[in-house]
Amino acid sequence: MIRLIFIALFLSLQTPTFGQKPRARDIGIPFDGKPGKYNAITDVKGVEVGYSTIISGQGKNIRGKGPVRTGVTAILPRGKSNNPVYANWYALNGNGEMTGTTWITESGFLETPIMLTNTNSVGVVRDAVLKWFVQTNWYKEDFWYTYPVVAETYDGFLNDIYGFHVKETHAFEALNKAKSGFLEEGNIGGGTGMMCLGFKGGTGTSSRVVAIKDSTYTVGALVQSNFGAKHNLTIAGVAVGKELKDTLNYQFNAPPSYRQEGDGSIIVVVATDAPLLPHQLKRIAARVPIAVGKVGGRGENGSGDIFIAFSTANLTAFQRKDFTEVDQLPNDLINPLFEATVQAVEEAIINAMVAAETMEGINENKAYALPHKAVINVLKKYNRLK
Amino acid sequence: MIRLIFIALFLSLQTPTFGQKPRARDIGIPFDGKPGKYNAITDVKGVEVGYSTIISGQGKNIRGKGPVRTGVTAILPRGKSNNPVYANWYALNGNGEMTGTTWITESGFLETPIMLTNTNSVGVVRDAVLKWFVQTNWYKEDFWYTYPVVAETYDGFLNDIYGFHVKETHAFEALNKAKSGFLEEGNIGGGTGMMCLGFKGGTGTSSRVVAIKDSTYTVGALVQSNFGAKHNLTIAGVAVGKELKDTLNYQFNAPPSYRQEGDGSIIVVVATDAPLLPHQLKRIAARVPIAVGKVGGRGENGSGDIFIAFSTANLTAFQRKDFTEVDQLPNDLINPLFEATVQAVEEAIINAMVAAETMEGINENKAYALPHKAVINVLKKYNRLK
Amino acid sequence: MIRLIFIALFLSLQTPTFGQKPRARDIGIPFDGKPGKYNAITDVKGVEVGYSTIISGQGKNIRGKGPVRTGVTAILPRGKSNNPVYANWYALNGNGEMTGTTWITESGFLETPIMLTNTNSVGVVRDAVLKWFVQTNWYKEDFWYTYPVVAETYDGFLNDIYGFHVKETHAFEALNKAKSGFLEEGNIGGGTGMMCLGFKGGTGTSSRVVAIKDSTYTVGALVQSNFGAKHNLTIAGVAVGKELKDTLNYQFNAPPSYRQEGDGSIIVVVATDAPLLPHQLKRIAARVPIAVGKVGGRGENGSGDIFIAFSTANLTAFQRKDFTEVDQLPNDLINPLFEATVQAVEEAIINAMVAAETMEGINENKAYALPHKAVINVLKKYNRLK
Amino acid sequence: MIRLIFIALFLSLQTPTFGQKPRARDIGIPFDGKPGKYNAITDVKGVEVGYSTIISGQGKNIRGKGPVRTGVTAILPRGKSNNPVYANWYALNGNGEMTGTTWITESGFLETPIMLTNTNSVGVVRDAVLKWFVQTNWYKEDFWYTYPVVAETYDGFLNDIYGFHVKETHAFEALNKAKSGFLEEGNIGGGTGMMCLGFKGGTGTSSRVVAIKDSTYTVGALVQSNFGAKHNLTIAGVAVGKELKDTLNYQFNAPPSYRQEGDGSIIVVVATDAPLLPHQLKRIAARVPIAVGKVGGRGENGSGDIFIAFSTANLTAFQRKDFTEVDQLPNDLINPLFEATVQAVEEAIINAMVAAETMEGINENKAYALPHKAVINVLKKYNRLK
Repeated sequence: MIRLIFIALFLSLQTPTFGQKPRARDIGIPFDGKPGKYNAITDVKGVEVGYSTIISGQGKNIRGKGPVRTGVTAILPRGKSNNPVYANWYALNGNGEMTGTTWITESGFLETPIMLTNTNSVGVVRDAVLKWFVQTNWYKEDFWYTYPVVAETYDGFLNDIYGFHVKETHAFEALNKAKSGFLEEGNIGGGTGMMCLGFKGGTGTSSRVVAIKDSTYTVGALVQSNFGAKHNLTIAGVAVGKELKDTLNYQFNAPPSYRQEGDGSIIVVVATDAPLLPHQLKRIAARVPIAVGKVGGRGENGSGDIFIAFSTANLTAFQRKDFTEVDQLPNDLINPLFEATVQAVEEAIINAMVAAETMEGINENKAYALPHKAVINVLKKYNRLK
Repeated sequence: MIRLIFIALFLSLQTPTFGQKPRARDIGIPFDGKPGKYNAITDVKGVEVGYSTIISGQGKNIRGKGPVRTGVTAILPRGKSNNPVYANWYALNGNGEMTGTTWITESGFLETPIMLTNTNSVGVVRDAVLKWFVQTNWYKEDFWYTYPVVAETYDGFLNDIYGFHVKETHAFEALNKAKSGFLEEGNIGGGTGMMCLGFKGGTGTSSRVVAIKDSTYTVGALVQSNFGAKHNLTIAGVAVGKELKDTLNYQFNAPPSYRQEGDGSIIVVVATDAPLLPHQLKRIAARVPIAVGKVGGRGENGSGDIFIAFSTANLTAFQRKDFTEVDQLPNDLINPLFEATVQAVEEAIINAMVAAETMEGINENKAYALPHKAVINVLKKYNRLK
Repeated sequence: MIRLIFIALFLSLQTPTFGQKPRARDIGIPFDGKPGKYNAITDVKGVEVGYSTIISGQGKNIRGKGPVRTGVTAILPRGKSNNPVYANWYALNGNGEMTGTTWITESGFLETPIMLTNTNSVGVVRDAVLKWFVQTNWYKEDFWYTYPVVAETYDGFLNDIYGFHVKETHAFEALNKAKSGFLEEGNIGGGTGMMCLGFKGGTGTSSRVVAIKDSTYTVGALVQSNFGAKHNLTIAGVAVGKELKDTLNYQFNAPPSYRQEGDGSIIVVVATDAPLLPHQLKRIAARVPIAVGKVGGRGENGSGDIFIAFSTANLTAFQRKDFTEVDQLPNDLINPLFEATVQAVEEAIINAMVAAETMEGINENKAYALPHKAVINVLKKYNRLK
Repeated sequence: MIRLIFIALFLSLQTPTFGQKPRARDIGIPFDGKPGKYNAITDVKGVEVGYSTIISGQGKNIRGKGPVRTGVTAILPRGKSNNPVYANWYALNGNGEMTGTTWITESGFLETPIMLTNTNSVGVVRDAVLKWFVQTNWYKEDFWYTYPVVAETYDGFLNDIYGFHVKETHAFEALNKAKSGFLEEGNIGGGTGMMCLGFKGGTGTSSRVVAIKDSTYTVGALVQSNFGAKHNLTIAGVAVGKELKDTLNYQFNAPPSYRQEGDGSIIVVVATDAPLLPHQLKRIAARVPIAVGKVGGRGENGSGDIFIAFSTANLTAFQRKDFTEVDQLPNDLINPLFEATVQAVEEAIINAMVAAETMEGINENKAYALPHKAVINVLKKYNRLK
């Protein structure tokens, strides 16, 4: 009883400055490391994020009519600048799509925004980015070609995904609304209709600030989180999923026949201002499985766990006609960035779940929100509350 | 004069059975190996190919109006069956897009048709495949997710590519028209507006039949060919590009400022009925650079040289619920398939150039057809005519 | 006091059947999943493991004289049979060596035993395998070539590693002593001089049995564990490393100047009798980072975290002259093997630490054993004892 | 007779400045591009190459006695400096060994010399490099670990390869004799007992100088060439192998039963002084298959075609404790380096064959030298002589 009161006080004292809703650490979940100002990917200077959320209808699914529970998220590495960033990517399990990766591997550069949406809307969003380039005169000097990066997770348990409700205007909206600073989480943007580790999932973000020699660098993560089996849900090292036996989870009134526990996907975007070269950014992306594993992912067969990392350092790295000098962090100093990546991704996933609210979608299917109080009680049982 | 007569005779004697136009070997270009019945990817039983060709307008480019010189090609590994095939892929130079590859790498399977179109229409074609699945009840039992494979090359020198003229109906047309047997080549389907090694490029195909132990296998290739610098054009080992000094090549009235010699791309699809496992199909795809190199490609920086290979053997390889037995060709017997791949891809590229006719596109830009007679004369000079 | 007695009782009641020393679960550390008979990689039928342990001298390091704390471990996928197995591999962080991987990637087969030793003895062990093939008439029909798989971790903090004390006879010994059944752990074989997560590391093993449809499959892991920073040591989800503040850890009297926390390496060998194809075995190897991450690894820059997985199924998969049929587990049924891999590797790492005893090496450097009692007390504090 | 005189004259007019023997272009074989001063990998400033050649005995093979036809080649990217270079690698067909590659992929750096020897001597040479580091105080500040890069091709048709005649002294010799300037070719160093495309193979080298913007860069290649089927031998685009019907080729008195046409391997080392980052050096390595294909390789199953590329630019790229600035060539300017790589590798392979002399090895097996005069006659027939 005393503890409950304490928690209430705790929350009221720690009301987040920027958002309306409590985030994972606001409700007492412990994390390692030091977050940036907004505890968001936007703590990496220049990074902007925009959302388009599409929610309409309820009841039985009529293909093309809805209900609709989906959206689009846009991540712009240098905001509205068309200046490419060094990047690389890794897939823990490739049951998913991220367009544009072949050129990233080859060139070392990410030349476009990163767009996140549902599985069946990758195409419309991909071409919409090109149209937005025309609208905004992105190429300035010349019309040329590029390969927009669009990734997806599957919201077809709540959303009329074969109704193709994402239109190019939604992609434009996400791109145009992109901003720095505080970011909303949960049922928003591309994460709107997602489910995760037995509960409602969605969009989450977090960041870490690390010191390397005389400099301070930020690592930020944004996830579209839609993966994992409930029995594997692990928070702060505690097997929360197994303890939450009596909670409401998913409720499928017309379950797809192939669905297995653990199906789903997670797209992770990692940004940093540390001066990493492309092969070093692959190393960052390849540490994300550790974070996914810590909260309960196993790279399940039905999961598209695809991770992209970019560096906003080296403003002049991309040249067409001139040699250039670039800064490079030595490999021997990279460990703090690995640790920060693992920490930020882990917290971003939990943030997505903490922020996401119970949603009813097609056919009255439901994904229930992670029950904050029950989670806290489990952590208490295992002495994991601060 | 005598030569002209000779060639005319030669052609009349070797009139191709199936097509209207002479193909590379019809005009006397020598190739190694034994082609299949149609000398086409469709010689691999079950493979079907369909085209949608979009040509309209002429004169100055008005974005959204045209002129339009583009299209869509659909390759269906098992025709209208939704039964996946083992597959894998390789990129010699990744300045291009092929969607769906991450799941191919992970799963070993290609679950969708392969679609080829222009760079800016990958998205619309990708989502159209999903809509076509709905139309044709492709999934039968259940609606589930998959990742359509769509690749592209850039036709923006002849086509109003930022006008986005490919619509989902064009994708449906290519899919619905897909058939086995004789295939048209040149300015058709996704290859309509393409350019190659200094001349008009486009769609080409070829095949080889090889004996391995007591069995006969077919390797078929289809290319959307849009790559290479004229000075590297090599036919039958002869540096034809350097010899053809006085021919008409490209004529750009409003050249894009970034363009370099060798920019472009080539997508190669290799099909075989030999029982290869996914890791063996990667080996097939990784031999394609040898063929591209033999005709003059260097995997130039501005080129998206992406290759996919699949096997139609093992009809029961893909299962959701049951263990299965699959046939496997031992590695020690794979060499004839490597050789056949190199031969079929080389001939498919030359076939595309031989078939392609001079085209005038946006801003009266022109890509001239490979001059058959002049090529033959060069081969004669180097004693390479049979 | 009561607790001490309880533990003593606990241990006496749970005395391991096969070994002399308690293993991780014997002292009460909880793990998920069901192990096989020996809770060892040898639970996968046919797999044999042999050790050669080299310990001599003490005091100041005189290069070439010692002290010596090193060894060799041999893992034979099908015992003394030369019949190759399907295999694949993945590196979380490639600061290490595993020879023979290029041919595994290309061919899909592992054709030799897997040998584990120290960093500077990879060469002598590699050639020794070839000599052992001659001795044992391994090739039977014919002398041919192959590429022995030899991996390493760095024991130069305890061992005179630049003294090159591993000789080919040690490799022969490990190969000749290879056996099935119970396996010793800790300071043995290649793991003799290894250190892990702040304490003495070494060799560890574990296994899991899973049911898939009507069949039962075993996944076994063997680790040579030499990685991680103490502050990250995590057991059963509890941050044990941070809690063990007053324990004895490493003591370097002549510390190498470049050494950083987290330097080290882990080699993981995963065996299974499930019928997985090479591309599926890559998926198995790529799940190992989740287990490494769960106990506290981050793929640190100074760490060679290289993982190999093989399947003993499909006895007739390798052929030189004939086509063959092989069994294949469908991707949709692979999840239990992913989970089993994560569980077995996690337990194998903890087993190595539990078994390893305090060791004094060169220059009186010391690596202290994981303090069992203190660990149990920490787990108790977090309510993690069964 | 007349021809012999002609060739003698020809040679006297074109006597190579540096070597005793004619090289490919000395006998009239045409190549594209402009070579450097020595037409050798040593034209890249700093690169040094050393050989150890081991030839003894004749007659029947007695394992351990000989005959011996083998050796070691050492390539030191920055001569005797221990300063690492950016590097990367690619395998067209991985039926071979190149140790140390996993760390190159991860770190982007090559930290050791590159050693080439026979298949069964990779181990002894690998450890010998570490011993040479001790002898030469390579690490200066501190003893630390690294992973020597050692690659191989199989000389077991001429050499008593299972006699293990390469000793660490041979590796020391190759390292200690390494020098810049003119390089011998053919039956020397690691290439001593090699065979290629139906004739005697061995060691070859070549270089190209290219202008990029205001700078001049050199690309150098060294090959240990032991691959390919005679019927595919192609020189200057001409199918020389098919034409040389009556020449002496291989003569096996005790042929290994598994041998197939095309078995063998080629290791290629590409050096450049152009400032390429690691991911760009992978692009260089991945263009080597084009050169291998042009002369007749197909990445045959029995071939270990492994290619490594490094850049000697960026002297301060490798740091342990400090951030650093590095020069970078923009991707848009990389094409001349791709072309130079293809040209230099092609010529290096032909150089190896032109220089190699007929060799009799174990069991009186013979590999005959490429017949210069006959080759020239074939090129003449196809109008390919300058």
